[in-house]
Amino acid sequence: MQDVPTLVEQARAGRPRAVARLISLVEGASPQLREVMAALAPLAGNAYVVGLTGSPGVGKSTSTSALVASYRRAGKRVAVLAVDPSSPFSGGALLGDRIRMADHASDPGVYIRSMATRGHLGGLAWAAPQAIRVLDAAGFDVVLVETVGVGQSEVEIASQADTSMVLLAPGMGDGIQAAKAGILEIGDVYVVNKADRDGADATVRELNHMLGLGESRGPGDWRPPIVKTVAARGEGVDEVVQALEKHRAWMEERGVLAERRAARAAHEVETIAVTALRERIGDLRGDRRLGALAARIVAGELDPYAAADVLVEGVREGD
Amino acid sequence: MQDVPTLVEQARAGRPRAVARLISLVEGASPQLREVMAALAPLAGNAYVVGLTGSPGVGKSTSTSALVASYRRAGKRVAVLAVDPSSPFSGGALLGDRIRMADHASDPGVYIRSMATRGHLGGLAWAAPQAIRVLDAAGFDVVLVETVGVGQSEVEIASQADTSMVLLAPGMGDGIQAAKAGILEIGDVYVVNKADRDGADATVRELNHMLGLGESRGPGDWRPPIVKTVAARGEGVDEVVQALEKHRAWMEERGVLAERRAARAAHEVETIAVTALRERIGDLRGDRRLGALAARIVAGELDPYAAADVLVEGVREGD
Repeated sequence: MQDVPTLVEQARAGRPRAVARLISLVEGASPQLREVMAALAPLAGNAYVVGLTGSPGVGKSTSTSALVASYRRAGKRVAVLAVDPSSPFSGGALLGDRIRMADHASDPGVYIRSMATRGHLGGLAWAAPQAIRVLDAAGFDVVLVETVGVGQSEVEIASQADTSMVLLAPGMGDGIQAAKAGILEIGDVYVVNKADRDGADATVRELNHMLGLGESRGPGDWRPPIVKTVAARGEGVDEVVQALEKHRAWMEERGVLAERRAARAAHEVETIAVTALRERIGDLRGDRRLGALAARIVAGELDPYAAADVLVEGVREGD
Repeated sequence: MQDVPTLVEQARAGRPRAVARLISLVEGASPQLREVMAALAPLAGNAYVVGLTGSPGVGKSTSTSALVASYRRAGKRVAVLAVDPSSPFSGGALLGDRIRMADHASDPGVYIRSMATRGHLGGLAWAAPQAIRVLDAAGFDVVLVETVGVGQSEVEIASQADTSMVLLAPGMGDGIQAAKAGILEIGDVYVVNKADRDGADATVRELNHMLGLGESRGPGDWRPPIVKTVAARGEGVDEVVQALEKHRAWMEERGVLAERRAARAAHEVETIAVTALRERIGDLRGDRRLGALAARIVAGELDPYAAADVLVEGVREGD
């Protein structure tokens, strides 16, 4: 097994196997997890994290690939984290990614990782931020986090990004429905892909209308732009990158970027702390203490709240 | 507002409004929650808690009503807790219950309560055990907990019961599929309702086969019986009650009842303790401490795990 400082050094030098190894270490809650996280801390905070979300069929994979190409032309190192919270088939997702991202396969400035979060300890909130932290510390300029659909998990993932990008396609009524359901609260940049198809302008209009219905904005507030693309032909993709960079600049100017990152860090710490406390209580399960408390409840000598107080005291005293 | 001892006394005297008030107090995490729970502790532990679950359409409501009638003929006081974890329409469920249970409306020995758990703090695991405790302490001999479907929530509810009863109906392929998915692990008694319909014997056979596939049983082990009923006409219902009572006697004889109740109490205490600890961390959210930790993470001075340690210490020290 390689030591952590060497792995970190190799990852920063662009060695994909070292990056992969580090992600595996933080994903799997390995014994080295804490050592890795401590080593990464001073190196992270430079990557621009962009979330991409949208319903199946809007062309997320193609758009991601086109965005990678655009950022590469600008000389940036780009990492892609493809998160599919619903699929238990991480192998399949991995294969799919490999095929569609074949363009970038031999490019050392691009790193692609699939992540099936089902079964992960603590789910999405646990695994994705850690992987993002590795990619950030490894020196990627841009980290694209791609998620499917518009569920709670996707909103959670979006909250991990500096900028959230929502993809739609014309003629997908459910796309707009999904939008109504919550997507309008998370998008910083909207992209209507497959814009050469019938109904693209109608989709843009409808989206524009819906965005306008939101709360009134002040003069300095961010108004999410809507960009039309044909990602399969690379059309409009540089404009998307421009919109993203504009949002980033706006956030930096207004202090929003620092705020978002602080909120994200706070949420991450909370998640880890709650998990740690839960594990401590779990440790008491095999303990005679919990058994004794349960017996007293069954005997009617104690109520569950009074018993929980005893348990919480036990955790606090750390014994 | 009535004082808790008076409410408890009235509930034990069979006054439904007092029972309802007590359930509301424990459901809503009211300031009096702890006082109520402490008052109930010495009175609980006598009710026989039976869980009923099954897919929609198998006749759960009719079966519940028929079981209530059977227990009433035996002179038992019966409470029904109808839990629908998926429905946000508690009002609707309540109305439905009122209609179908109209037979028992004027019977002071019967109490019926609907519970929509969505939105409840801590969900099902939180609300149902507390309501069961109230009904138990109020002196009901039998508490029937009726749930819909076979999801995680239902399995959770089943774990709250002394005896779990699973309802099936002929010609419902998905019923058997559901059974395959997990119902076979939770049933102590199986009921094939609508047994006058075609395919009832096939359903019994298939179920028998599937139960036989389970791990081998020793001579003293419980083999779940399969009872055929036509609940709408009351046929087979007394046999269901006999099967339930037989299971109860078996559990008492083997010490299984005490074990189950202790495990249940332990789980309840754990849930309350985890919730309490989570709330304490939540309290720190507005605190400058979490903000300061987050800022240090963003600055790369600290990793999230080290920060979580600080937070956990804070909870343990209770400051």
